[in-house]
Amino acid sequence: MGNPVLVELTRGLRRESMHTGAVAVARANGELVAAVGDVERAVFPRSAIKPLQALPLLETGAADRYGFGAAELALACGSHAGTREQAATVAKMLLKAGLDVSALGCGIQEPLDVSAARELVRAGLAPTALNHNCSGKHAGMLATAAHQAEAIEGYWLPDHPVQIRILNALEAVTGRGLASDLRGIDGCSVPNWAIPLLSLAGAFARFVTGEGLGRERRRACRQLARACWAEPMLVAGPGRLDSVLMRALPGKVLIKSGAEGVHCGGFPALGLGFALKIDDGAKRGADFVAASLVRRLYPQVAALGPQTPLHNFRGLTVGEIRASPALEGLLASLR
Amino acid sequence: MGNPVLVELTRGLRRESMHTGAVAVARANGELVAAVGDVERAVFPRSAIKPLQALPLLETGAADRYGFGAAELALACGSHAGTREQAATVAKMLLKAGLDVSALGCGIQEPLDVSAARELVRAGLAPTALNHNCSGKHAGMLATAAHQAEAIEGYWLPDHPVQIRILNALEAVTGRGLASDLRGIDGCSVPNWAIPLLSLAGAFARFVTGEGLGRERRRACRQLARACWAEPMLVAGPGRLDSVLMRALPGKVLIKSGAEGVHCGGFPALGLGFALKIDDGAKRGADFVAASLVRRLYPQVAALGPQTPLHNFRGLTVGEIRASPALEGLLASLR
Repeated sequence: MGNPVLVELTRGLRRESMHTGAVAVARANGELVAAVGDVERAVFPRSAIKPLQALPLLETGAADRYGFGAAELALACGSHAGTREQAATVAKMLLKAGLDVSALGCGIQEPLDVSAARELVRAGLAPTALNHNCSGKHAGMLATAAHQAEAIEGYWLPDHPVQIRILNALEAVTGRGLASDLRGIDGCSVPNWAIPLLSLAGAFARFVTGEGLGRERRRACRQLARACWAEPMLVAGPGRLDSVLMRALPGKVLIKSGAEGVHCGGFPALGLGFALKIDDGAKRGADFVAASLVRRLYPQVAALGPQTPLHNFRGLTVGEIRASPALEGLLASLR
Repeated sequence: MGNPVLVELTRGLRRESMHTGAVAVARANGELVAAVGDVERAVFPRSAIKPLQALPLLETGAADRYGFGAAELALACGSHAGTREQAATVAKMLLKAGLDVSALGCGIQEPLDVSAARELVRAGLAPTALNHNCSGKHAGMLATAAHQAEAIEGYWLPDHPVQIRILNALEAVTGRGLASDLRGIDGCSVPNWAIPLLSLAGAFARFVTGEGLGRERRRACRQLARACWAEPMLVAGPGRLDSVLMRALPGKVLIKSGAEGVHCGGFPALGLGFALKIDDGAKRGADFVAASLVRRLYPQVAALGPQTPLHNFRGLTVGEIRASPALEGLLASLR
């Protein structure tokens, strides 16, 4: 059976489009607090697990050795928008580790930030790997390789020590064995693993609370979360949901989007983690569900994130985006 | 019950995302030749019905009076990409009708064509309403108002004679009564009506064959279809599916996309029309299904449109986009 509709878009008096999906909200002990849809099916979390993928950067001692502060750690956890400042900070991360842009294996991407993309066009400059939304994660990975004196070339391959450390951390924090049949290649060429939403929600609850983690890992999680709250604009970018929500709720919500309609996060004060996947991969659906979750638990940010009315090119209201009964039910079950 | 999965996207060994939807293939007499999903539920066809919305441009005599040739008619039927040439031709259409860009009510949109958008940024120019993908349709609507000596202001409103003529043509060609509860406001601010896929497929079969239509309407349909085949690059733009397929198969397929995952079209030699809607509104899903239909009936264009392997930012193959069993079944039933 398919997952229920979570988000509906109307035009005039009728539903025009909709997004199905699943959401899990769990505690650090794995207890499922609320769920809708199939939360046991494994989904690729994509960039939503970047905070977990950044753990070895702290745990190997690489971040300390290269003097990475909140800005560098936020970029390592983030999907940045490729702005000039963000790209420059990634370049500095590489420099601190004795590397440069040529080491990056993420590929080249135009800045997600429209102003930054236009700035490049106006300047007659081509985007580089530094503008890729994953370049901060990759710079963090490269720093661990440099610190451990491992090969730089091929750090993105599944059998490179960089990726094996990340796999071990992911298995430990999610509590899942991640065999190679669960592995895919991410947009930025590093491995990504399909993991059930239930396990991802539990992992983020553990990440933000530290519950059930060893002392060193707990410290690394706390340091990464604090970096995201200290530098929320480096986790995503201007106007982007994760940045907007973490800037408004530092210390209260850690939130990270992933490609193909994924969002993960955690609420430390409530002891909760969450993970969601929109079946069709739509960012507009995932952003709406993630924002609805955060706004339900912290109503003071009701004005942030996607709003109900949908406008056309002339600014006329043509319909609305709204929670389905299934999503309303999930939200109502949370306090 | 929901519609079946039509398109699947994989990563590694697993399905990562999918698109559900419905497809109708019908004859001009309304006979359903093949279908998958709920083809009786009304969906907003959006820009997929632009060829039908262009009928009054010919039937009022406006196109003749203003000397519109294939280029102007193709733009009136099209969702162009806002290139310099396309915008300039729309400006000429307006000029021929004694109007200019200030009359356009579609709103302002950056060119869909990335090169054209960059060209504007490099030149330090802001996009205008001429760059809006619907400006050709609007110029055609305006030409009918000018020809009939009707008010120019407000030509986009449901009770303006321009829109009433279009409504009458739509009702006649689709065979559906289109009451106001089926009406929505389109992205470009003109009315759009929710119509079942079955009726849209029949309408496009009538449009491309002329069967069941009066002499004058048949002539108008033929003239519009020929314009699209003569100037396929003006119906969409460089690299865009509708242009690519009609350039390769002039006279064999009329095809037109609409926002929110809609595609309509017809195959005159086969006496068939089709209409499809992806439930979540994804263009990637609609393009894949539309291309699959055309390639099934005209295998010589198998190399055109979305191809199976999915590549990441470094060009690595990370998965594939493929027809679901339900879509495979539909395709297999067509010859």
